[in-house]
Amino acid sequence: MNKKEDIRREMRNLDREIASHLDRRAELAKEISRLNQGAEYKEADLSETRSLIDEAIQSSSGAFPQDGLNRIFTEILSQCNQLERPLTVAYLGPDGTFTHQAALTAFGSAVRFVPLATPDDLFDAVEKKQADFSCVAIENSTGGVVHSVLDRFLNSDVKINSELILYVRHCLISNIPMNKIKRIFSHPQPFLQCRKWLRSNLPEAQLVEVSSTVEGVRRAKASDDGAAISGELAANLNGMNILAKDIQDTLENFTRFVIIGRQASAPTGEDKTSLILSIKHRPGSLFEALQPFASRFINMTKIESRPTRQRPWEYVFFIDFDGHENDRKVQDLLDELKRATLFIKSLGSYPRARNYEA
Amino acid sequence: MNKKEDIRREMRNLDREIASHLDRRAELAKEISRLNQGAEYKEADLSETRSLIDEAIQSSSGAFPQDGLNRIFTEILSQCNQLERPLTVAYLGPDGTFTHQAALTAFGSAVRFVPLATPDDLFDAVEKKQADFSCVAIENSTGGVVHSVLDRFLNSDVKINSELILYVRHCLISNIPMNKIKRIFSHPQPFLQCRKWLRSNLPEAQLVEVSSTVEGVRRAKASDDGAAISGELAANLNGMNILAKDIQDTLENFTRFVIIGRQASAPTGEDKTSLILSIKHRPGSLFEALQPFASRFINMTKIESRPTRQRPWEYVFFIDFDGHENDRKVQDLLDELKRATLFIKSLGSYPRARNYEA
Repeated sequence: MNKKEDIRREMRNLDREIASHLDRRAELAKEISRLNQGAEYKEADLSETRSLIDEAIQSSSGAFPQDGLNRIFTEILSQCNQLERPLTVAYLGPDGTFTHQAALTAFGSAVRFVPLATPDDLFDAVEKKQADFSCVAIENSTGGVVHSVLDRFLNSDVKINSELILYVRHCLISNIPMNKIKRIFSHPQPFLQCRKWLRSNLPEAQLVEVSSTVEGVRRAKASDDGAAISGELAANLNGMNILAKDIQDTLENFTRFVIIGRQASAPTGEDKTSLILSIKHRPGSLFEALQPFASRFINMTKIESRPTRQRPWEYVFFIDFDGHENDRKVQDLLDELKRATLFIKSLGSYPRARNYEA
Repeated sequence: MNKKEDIRREMRNLDREIASHLDRRAELAKEISRLNQGAEYKEADLSETRSLIDEAIQSSSGAFPQDGLNRIFTEILSQCNQLERPLTVAYLGPDGTFTHQAALTAFGSAVRFVPLATPDDLFDAVEKKQADFSCVAIENSTGGVVHSVLDRFLNSDVKINSELILYVRHCLISNIPMNKIKRIFSHPQPFLQCRKWLRSNLPEAQLVEVSSTVEGVRRAKASDDGAAISGELAANLNGMNILAKDIQDTLENFTRFVIIGRQASAPTGEDKTSLILSIKHRPGSLFEALQPFASRFINMTKIESRPTRQRPWEYVFFIDFDGHENDRKVQDLLDELKRATLFIKSLGSYPRARNYEA
């Protein structure tokens, strides 16, 4: 028992020292704010914040959970940045949406959060300098890219400053064996995301759409021929069995968000660049446009084509690749691409995403 | 410029030290978990966590924002408690509800969160030991107490282990002057919460219910005779004017949540106790029941009467007062109340709430 008291005492001492370090950190942030007074206006950039968080996490011995370190240092930086220079961040409202969660994950709590009604509003807010950043869902592993957002990038000068990926995992949950299941209760979204699995494993089952996955679990529990699609925890807590895990069509069921601002992010060493390019509609022109990546061994992480009626572009491609615009190799690439394409526009360079579970 | 670099260097050093303190704290938590192995099962209690967070905040010089300290230490304790002893916390789902936000504010991110469908499920989960705690909305400054929840306390042995209060503030937002406003767009809830103000200031205006306050601001902006009720930030970011602030009927527009568990909380020095009592339906009996509070100078923070058809109780009162069941003075009070009432039941003692803005 004495041993435990000793441990608690040491914990208290550690907490007091952490608090005093945080106080000192806040004083330093205020000091920087004072030094910045009267200085030239500089756009906010997330890359320095991200570097500081990464350095802190990397200095850890690994004893403290890494996800926790990320959350704690995101909040520490959020609070200190607020003292140094207040930020306004917009996201697709209302409060409590998935995008709200993404914005909180990216920025911590100490920014001014503003829910807006449409993706267009999110671009407008940044362009009109009403927000420093907007958090925009750009792509989802099953639904694909959000075309309206990509199209908006064509006509906007906003830059991608950061990206964020949230994962969702689905389970089949029931208290009856698989071969007795006649109905499956869930929200329409999980049905879409588990289509393949359902078709090959429960092709006869009736899909009953309800208001939420939680409601689905409740209905499944109350029925004697039903199952639900929901997360693992909902099963455990409702005293129900998990008949199958990770039943979404791709094991990677994610939503990718980008943080848009008025400038690209400074290099961090682990960066990605996004660009839009259009090429002539003739055989070989795509190959020609991709050749410069291959010849430089630049890893392309994504290519998405999009027809557009906007002349003179016949096709527009959205391309993500590893590297930062400031890298010599990437600058050479962009120079060569300029000659091989009708139109090219960089959407910004930014630190590669960490992955978070939703 | 050199000065700023010095400051950044010191920040980095502080962060590294914080990370190393967190690592040590995690090791200590694991050590306690080892010491507890094979020990008698003990219900989880939030009061120790709350005390540690409070001590850390109190040790601060005040340079770091207090709300930030609270969030950071809530997360530190959340992560360390998870290593010491994993917790499961239920709330009214789906994800992203106001109750979800309350649960995250109270517990940090490192517990197993489980969204459930009804308040009854929240009580069941605790009673059946499927969750350590549930986060339940019990009262709202305009709608009053949630009667179904109070009634459930009558028939349950769960205890209130903690409380939490979230505030909401409303503004009237428009780009036209007050006397030109013909329509007001908002969600039904703000209309309810601003009824008095609207009746005396804009009695002629048509109230148009829309899906969210965000949507209301969008509609107001697009109209030439409209206003919206929403938060301050929505106005700023949409480039609209705030015509009136804090227009909710009571300046204190809050929702009070209680965290229910299987036992009351240990004393922290700043506690409240909730109890239910029923008295005979005859003149003077309420006065008689309240006398014991007055004679001991015990501060009653709330009394709510509730008729019930469940015999032999004619009236049931829900009473909150300052103090902990373990206090001698409170024990005397409860002894005397037992003699003066038909029925009395303590719902638990718990640390008094801090206030948070939603």
